[in-house]
Amino acid sequence: MGDSPVVAIVGAGLVGSGWALVFARAGCEVRVYDPDEPTRSRLPAWIEASAADLESNGLIASAAEVIGRVRLCESLPEALDGATYVQESVFETVESKTAACLAIDKAMSPQTIVGSSSSGIPASQFTGNCRHRQNFLIAHPVNPPHLVPVVELVPAPWTDPSALEQVRELMNRVGQVPVHVRREIDGFVLNRLQGALLNEAWALYEEGYASLADIDATISHGLGLRWSFMGPFETIDLNAPGGIADYAARLAPLYYRMATQRVPRKWPQETIEQAQAERREVLAEEDLAERRLWRDSVLSRLAAFKKTNGLGP
Amino acid sequence: MGDSPVVAIVGAGLVGSGWALVFARAGCEVRVYDPDEPTRSRLPAWIEASAADLESNGLIASAAEVIGRVRLCESLPEALDGATYVQESVFETVESKTAACLAIDKAMSPQTIVGSSSSGIPASQFTGNCRHRQNFLIAHPVNPPHLVPVVELVPAPWTDPSALEQVRELMNRVGQVPVHVRREIDGFVLNRLQGALLNEAWALYEEGYASLADIDATISHGLGLRWSFMGPFETIDLNAPGGIADYAARLAPLYYRMATQRVPRKWPQETIEQAQAERREVLAEEDLAERRLWRDSVLSRLAAFKKTNGLGP
Repeated sequence: MGDSPVVAIVGAGLVGSGWALVFARAGCEVRVYDPDEPTRSRLPAWIEASAADLESNGLIASAAEVIGRVRLCESLPEALDGATYVQESVFETVESKTAACLAIDKAMSPQTIVGSSSSGIPASQFTGNCRHRQNFLIAHPVNPPHLVPVVELVPAPWTDPSALEQVRELMNRVGQVPVHVRREIDGFVLNRLQGALLNEAWALYEEGYASLADIDATISHGLGLRWSFMGPFETIDLNAPGGIADYAARLAPLYYRMATQRVPRKWPQETIEQAQAERREVLAEEDLAERRLWRDSVLSRLAAFKKTNGLGP
Repeated sequence: MGDSPVVAIVGAGLVGSGWALVFARAGCEVRVYDPDEPTRSRLPAWIEASAADLESNGLIASAAEVIGRVRLCESLPEALDGATYVQESVFETVESKTAACLAIDKAMSPQTIVGSSSSGIPASQFTGNCRHRQNFLIAHPVNPPHLVPVVELVPAPWTDPSALEQVRELMNRVGQVPVHVRREIDGFVLNRLQGALLNEAWALYEEGYASLADIDATISHGLGLRWSFMGPFETIDLNAPGGIADYAARLAPLYYRMATQRVPRKWPQETIEQAQAERREVLAEEDLAERRLWRDSVLSRLAAFKKTNGLGP
């Protein structure tokens, strides 16, 4: 791939739209295709608002220039024409992913690399029948990709190592933070970490140790502050005089004991309903969409804060 | 307790020193005692530097005023004289906590409330023999308390509910974020959430799925961003069209499957040593202390960012 490759985005929902911004602000020509006309037609307004937000937070110099690099296409072949990288972001089922990848595979050049935004389904479950399956891998972002930079790169067993290397370089070049998940596993790394924390949070809530709001506060006014600029390993490395091994010597027995107190449990339906009721008291269902915009606006300001303080990618 | 109660801090290590700042910046008169002379003598310089840092980030109006409210005491009775709240912050072993609480119990007035900074040992293990044991409870902060506002309040079975209520009001008044852990449990809420995530992180690292640095990046450039201003439940509530119940309906099976793939394991010694070596390549042991100062300086700027953006306590 060249310095500013032409990038095709297939699937223009929230994830695909965010990806379009990621590549466009880095100077790439971006072609977006979605078979669903209503989804496609929502893109321009979203791109405009989001680019304006980035500009107002000093994260891009010119919204107009970025917007000018995004082109909506009427067909998949039109979007793929000249593209050296494709970011697949269609609905996350094995069926949708399989169909999208086969269609991309048919229309693409043999040198094109395809990253899938799949958040949990490994590429081996939907790329096996592609002619160019060695060019396919997972490139899983967090929502929204233009405000949260991490991207999990997960190769299928048949992914060419040089395809992985090219996507890693591309992600670095466009200002994302690629992490390499060396082989396939349910949930990859990010959602396994989130899942472990969520499973414990649900158990504590179910057993009545604390309210939903109080459990949230232990993260949002506690653990989450350091984690917004240091990972969990660096955090504990700094939390004992002799570093991470010293921390482990002091606290591993406690953490082991806590683990033995838990057996895998499904999140109980009654507890889920109670949580839903508790959340809807704080935030009505009709206000969810507005709160998501608020979240993204905070993430945008946080990205600017991290950039200013040398904490960004 | 009055509007600006006199507060005694017993134990002037890093946690106790941070607590002194918390109460002093909120207008309380603070008396600090530590039986260890070298520890005591380090306090003034630390308070001065940290107050200056808060002032430069706009978090307090006058460092000099805050510093003027902190008085070092030569004895425990001197520190407790007139104090209506005591924050116990001595070394975390059952023996140290028991000795400190018995000494405080002997010197305090019957109305005084005592919060312990214990991060994992429940109060029932070290306050049972105090005459005023109904006035003792856990008030567990994150390090450093003046930059990370959450405080876990955990009553012992004999703690008077009104003592809990008074500490909750006090913590709110001084700008911390109290959360109520309704009954004792190993690790309380905060360290159980941290532990669950760490246990999964160690397993992924041990099994070779990703490097230490890449696992850290999935948090520091990924999950940790939202978690620095929203808890895990609010995060998932916004991550499905219909809120938290909708999210659970979509993803609970995946998270359950991930949980069943793990059995409780001790963090393996060989893996710990490998992690220690990997961390020491990035950060030499002699640079740990400086990196901690850097962390606190970022936390201070982050606190200012959250305050400016209406995300603070």
